[in-house]
Amino acid sequence: MKLQSFVEYPFVDGGVCAAKGFKAGGVCAGLKHHALTDESVSEANVAANGVTETAPKKNDLAMIVADRDCAAAAVYTSNKVKGAPILVTKQNLKNGRAKAVIVNSVNANTCNADGVEKATAMCKLAADALNIVPEDVIVASTGVIGQTLPIEPIAAAVPGLVESLSYEGNAAAVNAIMTTDTRPKEVAVQFKLGDVTCTLGGMLKGSGMIHPNMATTLTFLTTDCAIAPAMLQQALSDVVRVTLNRVSVDGDQSTNDMVCVMANGVAGNKEINSENGDYAVFRGALYAVMLNLARMCAADGEGATKLIECVVSQAESEQIAETVAKSVICSSLFKSAMFGADANWGRIACAMGYADCEFDVTKVDVDLASAAGKISVAKNGFGIPFSEEEAKKVLLEDEIRVLISLNSGEAAAVAWGCDLTYDYVKINGDYRS
Amino acid sequence: MKLQSFVEYPFVDGGVCAAKGFKAGGVCAGLKHHALTDESVSEANVAANGVTETAPKKNDLAMIVADRDCAAAAVYTSNKVKGAPILVTKQNLKNGRAKAVIVNSVNANTCNADGVEKATAMCKLAADALNIVPEDVIVASTGVIGQTLPIEPIAAAVPGLVESLSYEGNAAAVNAIMTTDTRPKEVAVQFKLGDVTCTLGGMLKGSGMIHPNMATTLTFLTTDCAIAPAMLQQALSDVVRVTLNRVSVDGDQSTNDMVCVMANGVAGNKEINSENGDYAVFRGALYAVMLNLARMCAADGEGATKLIECVVSQAESEQIAETVAKSVICSSLFKSAMFGADANWGRIACAMGYADCEFDVTKVDVDLASAAGKISVAKNGFGIPFSEEEAKKVLLEDEIRVLISLNSGEAAAVAWGCDLTYDYVKINGDYRS
Repeated sequence: MKLQSFVEYPFVDGGVCAAKGFKAGGVCAGLKHHALTDESVSEANVAANGVTETAPKKNDLAMIVADRDCAAAAVYTSNKVKGAPILVTKQNLKNGRAKAVIVNSVNANTCNADGVEKATAMCKLAADALNIVPEDVIVASTGVIGQTLPIEPIAAAVPGLVESLSYEGNAAAVNAIMTTDTRPKEVAVQFKLGDVTCTLGGMLKGSGMIHPNMATTLTFLTTDCAIAPAMLQQALSDVVRVTLNRVSVDGDQSTNDMVCVMANGVAGNKEINSENGDYAVFRGALYAVMLNLARMCAADGEGATKLIECVVSQAESEQIAETVAKSVICSSLFKSAMFGADANWGRIACAMGYADCEFDVTKVDVDLASAAGKISVAKNGFGIPFSEEEAKKVLLEDEIRVLISLNSGEAAAVAWGCDLTYDYVKINGDYRS
Repeated sequence: MKLQSFVEYPFVDGGVCAAKGFKAGGVCAGLKHHALTDESVSEANVAANGVTETAPKKNDLAMIVADRDCAAAAVYTSNKVKGAPILVTKQNLKNGRAKAVIVNSVNANTCNADGVEKATAMCKLAADALNIVPEDVIVASTGVIGQTLPIEPIAAAVPGLVESLSYEGNAAAVNAIMTTDTRPKEVAVQFKLGDVTCTLGGMLKGSGMIHPNMATTLTFLTTDCAIAPAMLQQALSDVVRVTLNRVSVDGDQSTNDMVCVMANGVAGNKEINSENGDYAVFRGALYAVMLNLARMCAADGEGATKLIECVVSQAESEQIAETVAKSVICSSLFKSAMFGADANWGRIACAMGYADCEFDVTKVDVDLASAAGKISVAKNGFGIPFSEEEAKKVLLEDEIRVLISLNSGEAAAVAWGCDLTYDYVKINGDYRS
């Protein structure tokens, strides 16, 4: 997938370890095997995942540790049902400082009577092993909701996890947070504040239960830039709004969504304390990273074969543009048509029509575009003749752009989704196995 | 599917012809073949539908005609993009009177520059053939959006359609309005107003783009009860709210939704002119018919193998109960789990949590039930141990009930949906063929 950037940030390797002064690591604590009987594991591996007993073990426990105390900020799910780790992390980040992240996959530690106790225990296990205080630990979990999280395998794995930490450990860490993701998602960029080169990178997990509201899924960001906690929070909240909050895979907003960022100041720039020029550059770098993580998240949605990018322009307000764009990328009918590379644009019209906002439907133009070309399918709200053959060619690509002009203003917004496929149903018909 | 009734209405056969004084009919005007080249028809039939060239032709044009002038009422989609037939019917029903319905499938006559012209022409064709005025005709269309509706095959078919009209023509009519429906949907009940026996019946088409708001899909109701237009409209709007407005197949609210009812007064009861006892009985009969049509609609959702009924009780308000119930039946993740008969109740918790209303998540109890039994999966917002084997048995049935108690009031609501399956994707990957 080609990285997108609207500014001149050079992309670099390294994900959460790209910025100076961050180590990461990941190990397999065996949470999956712990949750199931031996027999069901074997069945599930073969039946649902096509994974055989001899397949390499996937990591399920990751850690990120900063060399120095960090400014930290986070944005959380607005789901009323919140994972226990969300509650504990919120408490720990009240002072705007953090030093480490511990995160597991397989089990979301949500809707469990002892959830907060277990999330607190994870912080303490990490803190003791790292010789820091538990309040400096960010804890996160992702996986099945409503099953008790076994703490023993985590306790047993933490020493090895700490031992595995390295300045090149980003790949092991991102592997550990993957659930139904088919590929790891990491991005990092470099930017200049005066003479000082700073780096900001991050990793994200998909790929189901993705329909953000104030945050999405699990995303961990690190930077060596010096920035005050309040400005870090402001930049994060602002960028989440126009990136992860405009992604939907399946309309299901997770209970465990969290995006957090740690800034250790190792780069040596003058700390950003206000909305000055340095802040604008920092925000731009954060946008470049999160925009690409958002696109990767949508493109690797459960079962997806295509990234769908819906651009709504010439709207009366950004709110209207965003509402229309999200309505289109969330339509199951439209998503199914995209899987079939069928230019059934009436479903775009339908989804625009039930978007919860006001605009003049008789002014709407719709184009479909991809690397293979562009076709116009509707003008002034009515269908226009187009070549089905050409449309098919455009839609057989794996990145499709739906370009909608409302012709009634100057605001615009983009939202990202994916197609709805047999594999989405397959993956989710028996997810817990 | 077993019919449900909370009162003592006897169900009778006959659908839209059950009430005295209504004829119906249906013919094949060939709209499907007209829209496609011969080659694409042949390919599409074999590939997408498994239908061979020798399969019997499905009807695509239906008519219902009353012996007498009727009181009439309707509820329409709130989609901003409205099918042209909606606009024409709204205009024709302004006086609360109608005498006939003409409806086609295959093509929705929506988002076409000449849509209103064509819908008006359909009314005139019907009116001329029936020797009534066009303003007494209800017109409706369902099918692909954004393709020009050919009027010639309709004009050619109307004489035969009128000839086919009979007091037993309900089956031919309901066949004509089916799109991806796998079975016809008709219900009728009898009820007593004093000594007079009245009948009310109807037919509904599914089965995709179903997510009602002020109406759903196409539903045609007929009754021989005498009732004033204003009371008919009140009863219809009231009952739609608690039946069709609580059905969702795929979250996509159609552009062509319409429910209409015609009352010809042939039964000879004293016309219902106020909210009296007769009105209550009539409303009950209407509820019995629409409740069952709603359940049939959900059960035969595109690709569905199961009806999902979500009952939310002990809510602070009916609004909260309805919002929670709809959120659960709309969750793609939960719907996929139901297809897999997987008791992944965490997805119910997740969907409740993002429902747009306030309630205390720590008071929530969840049970899953079917003809095979009932299991409790959550108590006070937390998971409780249950037998996976028993859960599987419950979920392998084809009617599943999700019973949610919010334990914070006395209001309740029910919503109906279905599972999400491979076939939904298959049907919608190339629907236009």
